[in-house]
Parts: sequence; C-alpha cells; structure tokens
Amino acid sequence: MATGNINVSVENIFPLIKKFLYSDHEIFLRELISNATDATLKLKHLTSIGEVSVEYGNPIIEVKVDKEGKKLHIIDQGIGMTSEEIQKYINEVAFSGAEEFLEKYKDSAKDSGIIGHFGLGFYSAFMVAEKVEIISKSYNEDAKAAHWICDGSPQFTLEEHDKTDRGTEIILHIAEDSTEFLEDARIRELLVKYNKFMPIPIKFGTKEETLPLPEDAEEGAEPEKITVDNIINNPNPAWTKQPADLEEDDYKKFYRELYPMQFEEPLFNIHLNVDYPFNLTGILYFPKLGNDMNMQKDRIQLYQNQVFVTDNVEGIVPEFLTMLKGVIDSPDIPLNVSRSYLQADGNVKKISSYITRKVADKLTSLFKNNREDFEAKWNDIKIVIEYGMLSEEKFFDKADKFALYPSVDGTYYTYEELHEKIKDAQTDKDDKTIILYASNKDQQHSYIEAAKEKGYEVLLLDSPIVSHLIQKLETSKENISFARVDADHIDNLIKKDEEQISKLSDEEKETLKTTLTEVVPADKYTVQLEAMDSNASPFMITQPEFMRRMKEMQQTGGGMFGMGNFPEMYNLVVNTNHELVGQILNTKTRKKQERLIKQSLDLARLSQNLLTGEELTQFIKRSYEMIK
Amino acid sequence: MATGNINVSVENIFPLIKKFLYSDHEIFLRELISNATDATLKLKHLTSIGEVSVEYGNPIIEVKVDKEGKKLHIIDQGIGMTSEEIQKYINEVAFSGAEEFLEKYKDSAKDSGIIGHFGLGFYSAFMVAEKVEIISKSYNEDAKAAHWICDGSPQFTLEEHDKTDRGTEIILHIAEDSTEFLEDARIRELLVKYNKFMPIPIKFGTKEETLPLPEDAEEGAEPEKITVDNIINNPNPAWTKQPADLEEDDYKKFYRELYPMQFEEPLFNIHLNVDYPFNLTGILYFPKLGNDMNMQKDRIQLYQNQVFVTDNVEGIVPEFLTMLKGVIDSPDIPLNVSRSYLQADGNVKKISSYITRKVADKLTSLFKNNREDFEAKWNDIKIVIEYGMLSEEKFFDKADKFALYPSVDGTYYTYEELHEKIKDAQTDKDDKTIILYASNKDQQHSYIEAAKEKGYEVLLLDSPIVSHLIQKLETSKENISFARVDADHIDNLIKKDEEQISKLSDEEKETLKTTLTEVVPADKYTVQLEAMDSNASPFMITQPEFMRRMKEMQQTGGGMFGMGNFPEMYNLVVNTNHELVGQILNTKTRKKQERLIKQSLDLARLSQNLLTGEELTQFIKRSYEMIK
Repeated sequence: MATGNINVSVENIFPLIKKFLYSDHEIFLRELISNATDATLKLKHLTSIGEVSVEYGNPIIEVKVDKEGKKLHIIDQGIGMTSEEIQKYINEVAFSGAEEFLEKYKDSAKDSGIIGHFGLGFYSAFMVAEKVEIISKSYNEDAKAAHWICDGSPQFTLEEHDKTDRGTEIILHIAEDSTEFLEDARIRELLVKYNKFMPIPIKFGTKEETLPLPEDAEEGAEPEKITVDNIINNPNPAWTKQPADLEEDDYKKFYRELYPMQFEEPLFNIHLNVDYPFNLTGILYFPKLGNDMNMQKDRIQLYQNQVFVTDNVEGIVPEFLTMLKGVIDSPDIPLNVSRSYLQADGNVKKISSYITRKVADKLTSLFKNNREDFEAKWNDIKIVIEYGMLSEEKFFDKADKFALYPSVDGTYYTYEELHEKIKDAQTDKDDKTIILYASNKDQQHSYIEAAKEKGYEVLLLDSPIVSHLIQKLETSKENISFARVDADHIDNLIKKDEEQISKLSDEEKETLKTTLTEVVPADKYTVQLEAMDSNASPFMITQPEFMRRMKEMQQTGGGMFGMGNFPEMYNLVVNTNHELVGQILNTKTRKKQERLIKQSLDLARLSQNLLTGEELTQFIKRSYEMIK
Repeated sequence: MATGNINVSVENIFPLIKKFLYSDHEIFLRELISNATDATLKLKHLTSIGEVSVEYGNPIIEVKVDKEGKKLHIIDQGIGMTSEEIQKYINEVAFSGAEEFLEKYKDSAKDSGIIGHFGLGFYSAFMVAEKVEIISKSYNEDAKAAHWICDGSPQFTLEEHDKTDRGTEIILHIAEDSTEFLEDARIRELLVKYNKFMPIPIKFGTKEETLPLPEDAEEGAEPEKITVDNIINNPNPAWTKQPADLEEDDYKKFYRELYPMQFEEPLFNIHLNVDYPFNLTGILYFPKLGNDMNMQKDRIQLYQNQVFVTDNVEGIVPEFLTMLKGVIDSPDIPLNVSRSYLQADGNVKKISSYITRKVADKLTSLFKNNREDFEAKWNDIKIVIEYGMLSEEKFFDKADKFALYPSVDGTYYTYEELHEKIKDAQTDKDDKTIILYASNKDQQHSYIEAAKEKGYEVLLLDSPIVSHLIQKLETSKENISFARVDADHIDNLIKKDEEQISKLSDEEKETLKTTLTEVVPADKYTVQLEAMDSNASPFMITQPEFMRRMKEMQQTGGGMFGMGNFPEMYNLVVNTNHELVGQILNTKTRKKQERLIKQSLDLARLSQNLLTGEELTQFIKRSYEMIK
C-alpha cells in the first residue's frame, strides 16, 4: 500500500480560475475592493488597539481607469505588504491573510468588519487581466516597497520598488476579451452595484463643486468652483446604525439611496438587528403593492459585511416577503449552495422565522398604535399579509388579529369585529353566519344594493388570492361561510325561516317556467323561480359560489384540478312577485311575450356584463327606437 | 529581482472546491457520469480503430444507492485505470485525462463525443462525500486492479484490489450535510435532469417486465414476469440523428420525452444541424402560445455533447425565440461567463443569427407549402413572429413576406395582399391608405359594423404587442396609417372629398351644441357634431388613436414616457342627421330634453363598456319601467 499527497497542478489551475472561479467575471472588482477594504480595516484595528503608532487618518480607496494604457488601478492606503508578506499571501494560492489575521486577533477583531475568507479573491483578477502587478509598501516603516508582476502563468517576479506612501496598488493589464472593463461607465456601474455601501470611501474620478459665495462678495461675483474627489459609496449606510439613532426621514432617505429610480415612497419600514444566535442587520420596506402579484420580486438586496452579494433572496426570506424591498446584511448565510441545502440550513431557517416574526410584530404595533393610518395603508399591503396568512401558519395566527376586511362602504373590520357586527343579522336558520362579499363595487352594484337593503354588511374583497384566503378562513373558523353577493338571490344566500309568499299559484308557476325555458337558452341559463319582494329585480343572473371560487382559485394556483376548463354556469332568477313577470305570464300573443322575456333577459345580462357584441349592438339599436 | 513559481496550497484548496467549484452541489453526479461516459467512449474509440483487441460489447453505467451504508456507487465498464494512471490523473488535481486523450488521438477522436475538459469534475465528489474510493481495472489485461481512497484531506492511499472485470467503480461516502443524495428519488431526479440523453445506457435499479404469452400457451396461463435493468436514459436522442432519418412522429415522440408533463402537442419543429463554422445540433418546437407574453420562458434546454447544462438560454438564443421549446446541443458555447461576454462572443453571435435564420426559413416554407395550415396556426405563433419583427431587423425583412393580418371575418392577408385589397377603397383624399383594425370583435362590434357598411376591411389585431408593430409598420411602409375603428366616426377615419350634407342649419347646430354641453359632463366627453348617414347611430363614443395607442404601448414597455398616467379621453360624436337628434333639438321642455340626452349618452356609453355601477343599475331599472 502506498500513501501520498494529492498535488494541485498549478499550470492547469490558472486557466481554471479564469473559467470557473466565479460564474460572473465582473466579480473581480468586488473582490479586489474587498481586499483593499480589509487592508484598510486591519490598519484601523491595529491603530485602535495601539499596536502600531502610525496615523490612521482618513484613508480612501481609489479606482482609476487608464484606457489608453489598457490598465485598471486599485489603490488603497491600508496596511500594505512587505516583500515577505507578498511571498506568503500572494504566491500561495488559497492562503488567506484575512483568516490568519482574524485568528491572531480573534478577541479584538471580531467586529472589525474584515471581509476576506479564502484568499482566492485576488486571483479573480486573472479572469479579466493578462498581467497583474502589485506595488505595496507596508505600514512598517523599515520595510522597503515591493513590486510583484505575474502574467497569469505560474511564474512571477518580485523586486523592490520606490513607492514611498503606505498601502497597496493593484494594476490590472486588462485582457483583449475584457475591454469592457476599461469603460468608465462599466466600472461605475460595478462600483455602484457591489460597493455602494462598503465601509471605506471609494474614489472614482473627480467632480466639480461650486462653493457658496462668501457673505461679503461683491455683486455679480462668480462663485468659486473647486475640484473634489468623487466618492462613489456611502460608508455608513442606515442599516449599520442603531434604530434609536435614526429618524423617519433617515429611513426614507436610505430608501432613495437604495432605489434611486423609484419615485414612490415606501409605506413603512422594519429595522432588523440581531446578534444571537446569528448575526443579521437590515431594513425592510413595505412598498405600495396594490393588487399585482406578478410585480418584480427579488428586490431585497443581500449583503455580507456591507458587500453586495445578490438580489435573489429566495430561500432566505419567506416567499411572501420577497415582495418587500430593502437590505439584509448577514455573514451567517451560506453562499453558493443549492436551494435544498439552504432550506435545510439551521441558521437560514432561524433567520427566515426571525424576519417573519419581526414583520408580524411591526404590523401588530402599527395596527395598535395608529389604526387609522393602518387602515389607510391596508389596500397597499394586504397582498403580502394575505399571502403570508396562506403560506405560514404562525403568521396566520398573528395576522388574524390585525388583518382587515373592508366593507363596500369603507369600514374596516378585523375578523372578530366583523363577526360581532354581523352575527345577529346574518346568521341563517341553520346557525351558520354568512359573510357576504363583492369583488367589484361597480360590476356587482345591483347585487350589493339588494344585500344592503336587507341591512346586511357587504365586504369588498378584491385581491387576486382572496378566494384562497376565504377557503382557509372557512376551515379555520367555526360555523361561518363566505358568499359573493351575486352567487344567488339574497334570500337564498342567507336563508331565514320566514317564507316569502308567492303571488303566483303553483299552476301559474308551472306555466311561467315552461314559457321561460322555451325562450331562454337552456345551455347557458338555468331558470329558477323565486318569490321575492315585488320591488326587487324581475330578472337576475347569478353564478353559484362553489364553482366560481374553484375556478378563481385555479387561476392563481390551487383549487380543484381541471375546474378551470368547466364552462361558466349561470342561473336566471325570476322574481314571481314582480309586476313585469306577472305581465309576461298574462301576455296573450306569443310574439309579444317573447319580446318581453328577451328584453328582460338582456337587461339582466347587462348587469352581469354578459351582453356584448352583436347582441349589445342590437339591444342599443332597439333602445334608441324605444326612446324616440 | 527574484522570480519563482506560484504555489497552490492543497490544504486550502480542498475546502474551496467544496465551496466554490460549482454553485450547485448536485452537479457532482453529472460530472462523475460524464467521466464514466468518457471512459466508455475511449474504449469504444480504441476498439473501433483496432488499437485494442478486447470486445467492446454493450457496456452500461450503473448507479447504486446504499442508504444503510451511506454510500453511492457509480460503476462503468470502460477503459479503466492502472495504478499508474490513477497516480497521474487523479492525484494531480486539474490534469485532465480527456484533454490528453483528445490530443493524442486528435485526428480520429474528433467525433468520439468525449466530454471531459478540465479534470476537475472528479473532485466535485468532495462537495457531497467525506470519503471517496476508486476501484479500477484497466482494459490492459496485464494490469492489476487498483484501489484508491481519500478522505478529503490531501492524503490518499493506493493499493491493489481483486476486481477482475474491466472498468471503474467510484464509491462516495456521503457526508452528513448531503444525505439528500442517499434518497432514490433525489438520485433519479438528478439522472433525469442531467443524464437523460447521455450516450451510454445508465442503469438505476431494476424493474419488472411482463413477457408476452407464447403463441402456443395454454388457456389461462400466467404471462411470465422477468426483472430487467431500469435504463434511465435514451442514448440516441432525436437531435443526434439526421433529419432525413426522422418522421414527423419521431419529432412528436421526442417532444414528449423532453416534456413528459406537457399534454399539448407542438405545432411544428425546426431541426438544427450545422458543422461549420461552429458545431450545433438541436430541435426547436413552436408550442401553442396564444396571447400570453408572460408564459414561462427558458424552456429550451442547452446540452453539450448530450450532457444537460442549463435551461436558461438567455444571450444564446435571440430573446423572441426563448418562447420556443426544445434542445440545443453545442460544444462551442462558452459556459460560466458573464452575459456581456456571451453577447460579445463571436461564436455565440453566429449561433444566434443562424437560429434566427433557420426559424425564418422554416416559417417561410410552411407559409409557401401549406398556406391553409399556416393560417390555422397563426394565432398560436403570431406572438413570436410579431416580437421577432420588432426586435430583429433581419427577421422583420423575412417575416414581412409571411406575417399575416387576419380580418374580423377570418380572411388572412399578407401585408402586400392587404394593401392591394384595400388601397382603392381605403385611400383618403390626402392619398394615405388607412388600415382599419379592431382589438376585440365583441367590444367594438358596432364600430366594426359601421366600417363594414362602407365596404371597408377591418383587421382583428389582438396580440398584446400589436400597437408596437403598428407603429413600426407605419414608419417602414410609405403612405399608410393604422386606425382602430372606434378612434373616430368612420367618415373621419377615412376622409373622402364628398361632404355629407347636414340636415341642420348652422344656427341649429349652435343651439344643439350648447344644449348638449350643458348636459354632457365636459370633463369626460368632448362633444363633436357630425353630419352622418341618418341610419348611423345618433350618439357614439370614440377614443382618439394616438393617445390610446401610446398608452397601450406603455403598458407593454415603450411608447412615450408618462402617457400611462394621462386620463382616458373620449369624444361624443353626435349625428346631426339622425331623427332622434332632431327630436332632442326640437323638444320644448327642458326636462324631457335632458332625459333624452342622458338616455342616449347612456346607450352610447354602453356600447363602449363605459356604463357601470350605480349608473348601470339605474339605467336597467329605468329600462324595466319602460318595457312594462
């Protein structure tokens, strides 16, 4: 038996780094600026603990494009490296100085914000550069500056350099296939995408600023213009601060920083801040959502130590919350893992339920502290809450206390309030409380009016997933049932003991039904005679609740399979107590009878938006004739 | 100056492989089966050129899950490795045997289908395994079998083994955090996802098959059941064959193989097959698309040498064709590169325009060879064609010959045919040919009828992006203009020289206009008096073309910025020659006059679907009263 060590063949691994290290080449800039940030933060840490006596000052990181020379420079004023350190940290691939540093200073450096982990970041430079130079001078004043050059083969050269100021300059000689990274606009795009909130100021070019005129300036004096560094980032973003140090306006300002192209203000925010058992900070915003389920998701940005990682938080944030916006910053979320691994990860599970809880708590306090404001925002946030109630049982339990059910007249009830309000009037003879709702005030106007005349309360439930929520409420609450106002004649929706007396005899009813079914197309409408109030509509079209709801549920995913393909089913409810219906029965000429039925049917169809095309054109033509 | 070689620190690179090699751990199985396939194809190649005299036979690859032992086995019957070869190929990370093989046999092996490239695939095993064993016996009969074991540290052991049959067995000792890969269902899922069309049969478990009864079987005899290998893949998928060897049914069968959950058949297919200047095979299918732009894209699967890579072909296939389905197999598409790099890559550009051209050619030939069938399919494919015409100029030029414009009566015209058909009747006094269209036959019924009465042709253009296409046609064709039938009174849409004579004097018109504007709400309708045919509608509501089209374009991306927020604008066209209008003018009591105007306005609004809610309820109530 032989034993041995696996060898990594350097000649072969260099092309691999280029090909495989990151799926996206643009990542190189994020990696190099992370290194520069680490070098600066290390110096900060050493000066703060008195280990070194140099002046920390106000170091920045500079990025420069030299389009003609085909070079990109990244320059920091951090801790720097001696020739020996380059030998150690750079020439040994995958030996991370950051880990060593964190190990050495583990007690004091825990919160220093140092990013590096694997020591591979530097090599991502070779994804875009054919040659890379490092010029570095250590904070250690005795050390000479060093100059390292490597053309992407495993060979490098290392010599002295005359650099006198502390820090490291990385020079990338951009390769032919990566010239995009010599464009100012492209580099600016990357800096804004990945480095917008990194903790050390990043300079990219300069800009002109106009100084204010001094108070004693002469009239007509030109204000002085000066050239200043163009700092691309905000090193202290709101989420890194304590909630106590932030005003409402600071949160709004930060929202505009995050989404400069977004003109609408967020409704409110949730500041996340937890140390144990995982580290997470962040700010989530509720944007105005309306009823659109398909709006762009994944607008929450994920950071690790202020470095942008991704805007796909699938698997980290519960799905119903991916409709929110904002940032999450946590070093405890594993990256580059499969979704199933993510879902099984203990930290991620805890993070997800922490976020859900914080959102529920915030909503509870908004509801309790300013109900009026909460009601005003309801229509813009309900989709998230309803979706959450459907998908997370724990959220349902909390949300059940603050979820609102608006009436068509604009009163907002909690479920409990609603039940209390309607239980006397709207409980039927079988002891079931019927909750009436409409999905559209305009389209169901006449049905809503009929319910209101009975003294019933009608809710306006118009979110796209409301049929699922109704279904859920019917199973989690006892002895209640939902019915849309146009699902049947109102006396049938809430059945009481009293029987309406029909003006027609059974025989007359029989005759009427026969006459009606001869004229009304049987494949579309089922005729249903009802003894109703004589002031109620003579004809009325209804659509049974169950089938309609199942079809709606299927449209948004769910319901009973195959329901979507069922044809629409309607009932034609005919009020046997209405004068017009009596008239139809007693009309002697068949032709006139038919005309009366057809015109009445057309009017009933109109109120359900079912009269269209040629039939509508004919109806209108007839109607013009009639008013002449 | 010092020079030296960069070192790769093996201790550090192993954890990196686990973390970074592929963003998705499940990839390991694809990689190991690719290696097994390569080992088998190498043997096939060597036997085919007579280099070795062993029997190639019908080798398979077997995958076995040992849940109790927490092991996963991948066993091939390929070329095998001697102890020395393991030393060379496995112990040197990133030294790919495949590349060496292809180099050595470069003339004969070009089409052998060998997959491996970088020699890193094997190490992906460590993403999911805490220990990996290789047991291998070379095709070289003199060589002893070898047994290699490595626990993920750089240390390995290598010893002899008593394996007697040719080939390699890989044994993964699955790690604690990856136990999902000990589930049969999970492994089956991966095999189906990545290896469904790989060229060597892959066995995963067994299944029972019922043998047909022999012809001389006694009555009541039980058919014999046998256990056979469960082969998970189809080693010869349709796209690897020549189009001449495939029937229509083979293409349909392959579609069902690709999309087993898809019940609808594709409309037609396009077989891609090109060797030079790039290598690409594949089959694209046109599914039934309808008018839904938001259907799931990225259903085209990308393969390389029959190994599944991704179903995201963004950047490779022109965007308008991502609505299609099917497969593309090309080794010439760079993987793991940024989108901007992909778009700049010469091969990818050529592949994209080759695919566009093949699609255009196929559509041209379908149009020419069976126009009737092409017309029948038009509504299911138009969205792709219209989107292509908008986004690719070259496709526009070709599609302009076969793109169809259906009339409301179901006649399908090409642009040229349409222009020829309408140019006499529909050219206005300024020599512009007006193409009339409707977006909905039902909703615009009365307007369509009015146009047809004039002998005009009305198109039915109902795709969601048609407003963009219209806009494009108006700029690429000369002297034409599109107008929706309800954009104005028909005589105004196509203005001829003849003037309609008004029955009303100028003074009467003045009085009428004053009366109307007093009753008709000015913030919603602009009153416009027209001398029309006395049989035309008395009142009619129109919506100007430009504003409506810009609003529509903005809804689907484009148009003029900010248009979406403009309020809807309507005109109320009043026919001064209609009897009812004369009546309104001459009614003496103000109250009756008002009632006439309101009822007429309501009827006009009805035909544009603008009468809703309480107003509709009131209208219906009034109408019941009138027919009583």
